Amino acid sequence: MPKPEAPGTLAHKLAEQWPSYAAYVVSFVTIGVIWINHHAMLRRVQRVDHSALVFNLLLLMLVAVLPWTTALLAEYLREDDGQHLAAAIYGGSLLAMALSFFAMQRHLLVARPELVVDTIGPAERKAIMRRNMVGLLPYVIATAVAPLSSYLVLAICGAVGVYYALPTTTSSA
Amino acid sequence: MPKPEAPGTLAHKLAEQWPSYAAYVVSFVTIGVIWINHHAMLRRVQRVDHSALVFNLLLLMLVAVLPWTTALLAEYLREDDGQHLAAAIYGGSLLAMALSFFAMQRHLLVARPELVVDTIGPAERKAIMRRNMVGLLPYVIATAVAPLSSYLVLAICGAVGVYYALPTTTSSA
Amino acid sequence: MPKPEAPGTLAHKLAEQWPSYAAYVVSFVTIGVIWINHHAMLRRVQRVDHSALVFNLLLLMLVAVLPWTTALLAEYLREDDGQHLAAAIYGGSLLAMALSFFAMQRHLLVARPELVVDTIGPAERKAIMRRNMVGLLPYVIATAVAPLSSYLVLAICGAVGVYYALPTTTSSA
Amino acid sequence: MPKPEAPGTLAHKLAEQWPSYAAYVVSFVTIGVIWINHHAMLRRVQRVDHSALVFNLLLLMLVAVLPWTTALLAEYLREDDGQHLAAAIYGGSLLAMALSFFAMQRHLLVARPELVVDTIGPAERKAIMRRNMVGLLPYVIATAVAPLSSYLVLAICGAVGVYYALPTTTSSA
Repeated sequence: MPKPEAPGTLAHKLAEQWPSYAAYVVSFVTIGVIWINHHAMLRRVQRVDHSALVFNLLLLMLVAVLPWTTALLAEYLREDDGQHLAAAIYGGSLLAMALSFFAMQRHLLVARPELVVDTIGPAERKAIMRRNMVGLLPYVIATAVAPLSSYLVLAICGAVGVYYALPTTTSSA
Repeated sequence: MPKPEAPGTLAHKLAEQWPSYAAYVVSFVTIGVIWINHHAMLRRVQRVDHSALVFNLLLLMLVAVLPWTTALLAEYLREDDGQHLAAAIYGGSLLAMALSFFAMQRHLLVARPELVVDTIGPAERKAIMRRNMVGLLPYVIATAVAPLSSYLVLAICGAVGVYYALPTTTSSA
Repeated sequence: MPKPEAPGTLAHKLAEQWPSYAAYVVSFVTIGVIWINHHAMLRRVQRVDHSALVFNLLLLMLVAVLPWTTALLAEYLREDDGQHLAAAIYGGSLLAMALSFFAMQRHLLVARPELVVDTIGPAERKAIMRRNMVGLLPYVIATAVAPLSSYLVLAICGAVGVYYALPTTTSSA
Repeated sequence: MPKPEAPGTLAHKLAEQWPSYAAYVVSFVTIGVIWINHHAMLRRVQRVDHSALVFNLLLLMLVAVLPWTTALLAEYLREDDGQHLAAAIYGGSLLAMALSFFAMQRHLLVARPELVVDTIGPAERKAIMRRNMVGLLPYVIATAVAPLSSYLVLAICGAVGVYYALPTTTSSA
């Protein structure tokens, strides 16, 4: 914006709320990417056991926590007190979600391989697990840098979401 | 109403809230029409790639923003300060939704035509794209007239929704 | 309760909120019954046209209004000012929902009979329409008695919901 | 935490809210377990009658009440006034949900056995009913101990949820 808006106007109020918009977009994209990956995971499944259902509930419970951690980060992003804690909780909630996704993936592909269709061979299973484990790393880093800067946490999480949303060379037909 | 209601009564309070009702109906009808069109779009699809899923998430993210822009317009419709900005944001949010729909349609029909069933020939594809592009125009106009009148923005968006909801001569069997 | 609770205690506060509970149950049961009937209606459909989809959206829009009219009735049920208006709006919102259901039913069975499976003959179509029309009557009455008593409106709407939820002699297999 | 947080800081505020987190997790896990069981119940069904649909709505209505009873318990868990009542309402809401599940199960397996697939013999039906009845007991106890301690109510309900979520020796393929 060319010049700062007068305080009290709608434009000023809306501009002040930008952390809410940024956090909303980052969380939405992250959940969206998890959703696409979840769909891909379930396409490989031929039947489920009790543990798979419980892992799935755990993932859902952690996704359902995100609106709360997102609002927390948006509220405290620019506060002197609490911004680092809020950012650690936000990064940690994304990490927890990614970890529960990883645990479910591992249960299906490694612990109970008979739940997955036979056309997925051992090499492909290993490749999927490796990609999943690499995907955990950015959230570990995002959570770890929370004491440095809450903006950095949000930026890393946003970059991860955008990276996975970008078109890939391999189609997920 | 024959005579103005006394301030403080329920009738008065409810009558004062009419922008909320109008904006609710306009947004609901608009999302409903997009939903019907989205269903028609997906019926033509035989498989999806990663980009189609991401376009779909983008559309969903913009639809999920509408309750906020709708409430903003309802709150500021009659305010001296902010009514033009709120109307521009409202019109702009509908335009963004329509644009993301157009982009997904274009990806399926033009960029990656193999994703759509073969029975949809080149002429029909062009006709669908042309209809979609024409459908963007009213939202461009609605957003552009925001500096003139917030009521006009709401009226144009409402008229577009009603127009698409009206019975057509061709059945979408 | 044997003796009135002391004001300010939780028991007192919860007891004071009984209109919310009653209105919640009545609205939930009414939407539930409409849902069951909607499912039965769609089981008879072999294809839909644009108007059927729009009728369906209209019904959904009116269902989505119910939480608001329910909260309004709960808030004003015992108020001197506004109880009659709130009750009329509540009864009217249920009537509007029932009318839109009736209009969709009529569109499918009478106006565009080819949308419904052939096994439903003219006699059965007439019987369904007659039952639907009779089902409108209690909501007309409930709305009409709003000037007399808001309690009566809630009682009639509740009785209708319970009546349709009760087991019938004919199974809807 | 090694030392108590200073009042007013974010860490202090979040630590103060722990009953909300605990109650959220307990309710989420309980609904999740009911969901898994509900899915198993519906897999045995070959058709439904009107009563089965109404039992299902009743269950849904009681599930939809849980966010309210959960928030009530979280708010009053540590209050001098109201903690016992809030805990009784919370335990009672879980008991009511479990009872409605039991009633639906009983309707399908005992009252109208023809609704369930033939491969489920009399012995298995009895075993399912027995397991369901045993599952009611902890919620009866949880509700009954509300006058003693609200913490105990939450602990029992949490233990039940975790118990059913734990891996079993029999897979629910």
